[in-house]
Amino acid sequence: MTLPSLRLKANADRRLRGGHLWVFSNEVDVAATPLTAFAAGDQAILETSSGKPLGIVALSPNNLICARLLSRDIRHSLDKSLLVHRLQVALSLRERLFDSPCYRLVYGDSDLLPGLVIDRFHDILVVQLASATMEQHKEALIEALVQVLKPRGILFKNDSAARDAEGLQRYVETAFGVVPEWVALEENGVRFEAPVLGGQKTGWFYDHRMNRARLAPYVKGKRVLDLFSYIGGWGVQAAAFGASEVFCVDGSALALDGVERNATLNGVAEKVTCIEGDVFAALRELKAAEERFDVVVADPPAFIKRKKDLKNGEAAYRRLNEAAMRLLSKDGILVSASCSMHLPEDDLQNILLQSARHLDRNIQLLERGAQGPDHPVHPAIVETRYIKSLTVRLLPNS
Amino acid sequence: MTLPSLRLKANADRRLRGGHLWVFSNEVDVAATPLTAFAAGDQAILETSSGKPLGIVALSPNNLICARLLSRDIRHSLDKSLLVHRLQVALSLRERLFDSPCYRLVYGDSDLLPGLVIDRFHDILVVQLASATMEQHKEALIEALVQVLKPRGILFKNDSAARDAEGLQRYVETAFGVVPEWVALEENGVRFEAPVLGGQKTGWFYDHRMNRARLAPYVKGKRVLDLFSYIGGWGVQAAAFGASEVFCVDGSALALDGVERNATLNGVAEKVTCIEGDVFAALRELKAAEERFDVVVADPPAFIKRKKDLKNGEAAYRRLNEAAMRLLSKDGILVSASCSMHLPEDDLQNILLQSARHLDRNIQLLERGAQGPDHPVHPAIVETRYIKSLTVRLLPNS
Repeated sequence: MTLPSLRLKANADRRLRGGHLWVFSNEVDVAATPLTAFAAGDQAILETSSGKPLGIVALSPNNLICARLLSRDIRHSLDKSLLVHRLQVALSLRERLFDSPCYRLVYGDSDLLPGLVIDRFHDILVVQLASATMEQHKEALIEALVQVLKPRGILFKNDSAARDAEGLQRYVETAFGVVPEWVALEENGVRFEAPVLGGQKTGWFYDHRMNRARLAPYVKGKRVLDLFSYIGGWGVQAAAFGASEVFCVDGSALALDGVERNATLNGVAEKVTCIEGDVFAALRELKAAEERFDVVVADPPAFIKRKKDLKNGEAAYRRLNEAAMRLLSKDGILVSASCSMHLPEDDLQNILLQSARHLDRNIQLLERGAQGPDHPVHPAIVETRYIKSLTVRLLPNS
Repeated sequence: MTLPSLRLKANADRRLRGGHLWVFSNEVDVAATPLTAFAAGDQAILETSSGKPLGIVALSPNNLICARLLSRDIRHSLDKSLLVHRLQVALSLRERLFDSPCYRLVYGDSDLLPGLVIDRFHDILVVQLASATMEQHKEALIEALVQVLKPRGILFKNDSAARDAEGLQRYVETAFGVVPEWVALEENGVRFEAPVLGGQKTGWFYDHRMNRARLAPYVKGKRVLDLFSYIGGWGVQAAAFGASEVFCVDGSALALDGVERNATLNGVAEKVTCIEGDVFAALRELKAAEERFDVVVADPPAFIKRKKDLKNGEAAYRRLNEAAMRLLSKDGILVSASCSMHLPEDDLQNILLQSARHLDRNIQLLERGAQGPDHPVHPAIVETRYIKSLTVRLLPNS
């Protein structure tokens, strides 16, 4: 196969040589290689201004990020063979890391598979395609997955907003085998079932695995509040780790069905109470009722989805965390998480400090958690790093 | 007891109200309260420019940081009773966190005990005093420690350079009971003995506990190289976690005696080999001998001790990490640590990326480790955060 060229302007190769994988549209020498000549999903050989090849890219000619490096080896464009190779490289890391086959198997650019996310739940795979190139290689991907993993079922959960920019329809489809509505998984030795069809994203958030594991020493024998609990990732693990009582708050009835299901699965149903409703309203009611908790987990959905939401989002994080601190008992612990890529960890730390000072209290920062190693960070692509989890101890102002 | 006042200039209280504990000498209203009127070790009531009390400070009138907040409650100056209270608050956190009594019990400002560090090894306490105030309260501290912890021995390891600026002599002294030369401890279920009298700092570095625990999934059945091994904190744990072979490199014969002792303690002596000598020279020799390792741990002493060392220090980190990467076998893992407070985590990440790119390789950043929770970070005092540990996977450039 002969691929067309995509030529960069002078010096625009520097960031890519430094390890980055993205080409911005203003870096392309459009006189030499017009972007208008490409369709979304095309592949091309990326070359420097002097014609030296840098690798093979996948094109999104209408996007600001108009191309992403698929390979630095120009002999290998994206096809079933490259997919099999990349899947094997991704799989060998996860097999080294985890005892049971429940993890994010592929994390986009960080696994050199831009536009592809795969979460593995034993023998069920949930796939998200976010680029036209990946969409075009869907059949090759299914074949590659069957060859490498022999799954029982493959679900395409292609309903994310990211697809709109690529001109792709949103859909959810079982593309191979059978995928039940609720799918079993294991995390930190605790069993769960996730609603892969109707739930959020792929149905489960493996990214906080390590941070949830670190709950164990803090929750033993303690009263725990899990805010934005979803299906109990934090709360049910806290109960399984020995918490005396756990309260899970979420606005979604489906999510709380999941909490009950998962609490029952682990024999801790009598310790877990679900509170359905708006989290901020629930915080006010719990405060009014003078409820207190030894540990509060606040892991909200991204309050800062785009950069322009930063100010309002920071205010929301501050409101949430301050309200959470107000519910802590003496020597209480707050686990404050954020999945907003645009919120730097230091900003979240400052929000916690300011909230504590506003209550005339002091904090010690005990744990600084990140996304687990099945969500590797690409060190040149800051956007691949998004999970923060800060554990603080609230102390009197003495 | 009536304490004298230390008055701040207008607005200089803002940072302290925001949570910080330090007063800089240029923030003091020296016309109202001359610093020359104080001796090192004095206590005073810190007040705003309008005379409102903020708390009690310990003075170091000749230092840039001329005072540190001991308490925001002006009824309680530093004495045995406050020491007992603070020790109990510090202890209750550690008892919640750890099964065995081996940890940093007190971490200075973060535990509201500026100038005091205590590492606990079962019933032996190793204490470092870094301020004149703490030095003056040494007897009260011994009484408080005996009351709260009933130790078998208390060692004052007061030989750090930080004492010079306070005009304090350096000395090492067993101030209570009996302290053997080598003292037992446990970390992550692995047993050690540390040379508390003749070793580095307090004899052991509890700060990397969590990062060493995270070695387990990476080293099973693998060949591991531990650079700047000291007494085997990383290397012996790797062997205990199932590494097939471990090589510990250090310039100190005492340190390598410790490695052998600790390897034997855990029944892994036949898997552990010591290499005595300069680490950079050893890296060159191992390269020349075409040795390869599946996992390399590079945890050097601080290459950046003062801010002005930043450029040279960064170059040293880069030399070290690039040399370490050259020794990695296919799909190798590098654990790159730094205890230089002046080296931001993002800079270390960039050093790793640049090193990999210089070798025409790519990396995935898998783990982002920090100091353990017995070294709590004071969220307003950036200097209390110093440990970084980045785990990366080195991949071919394809």
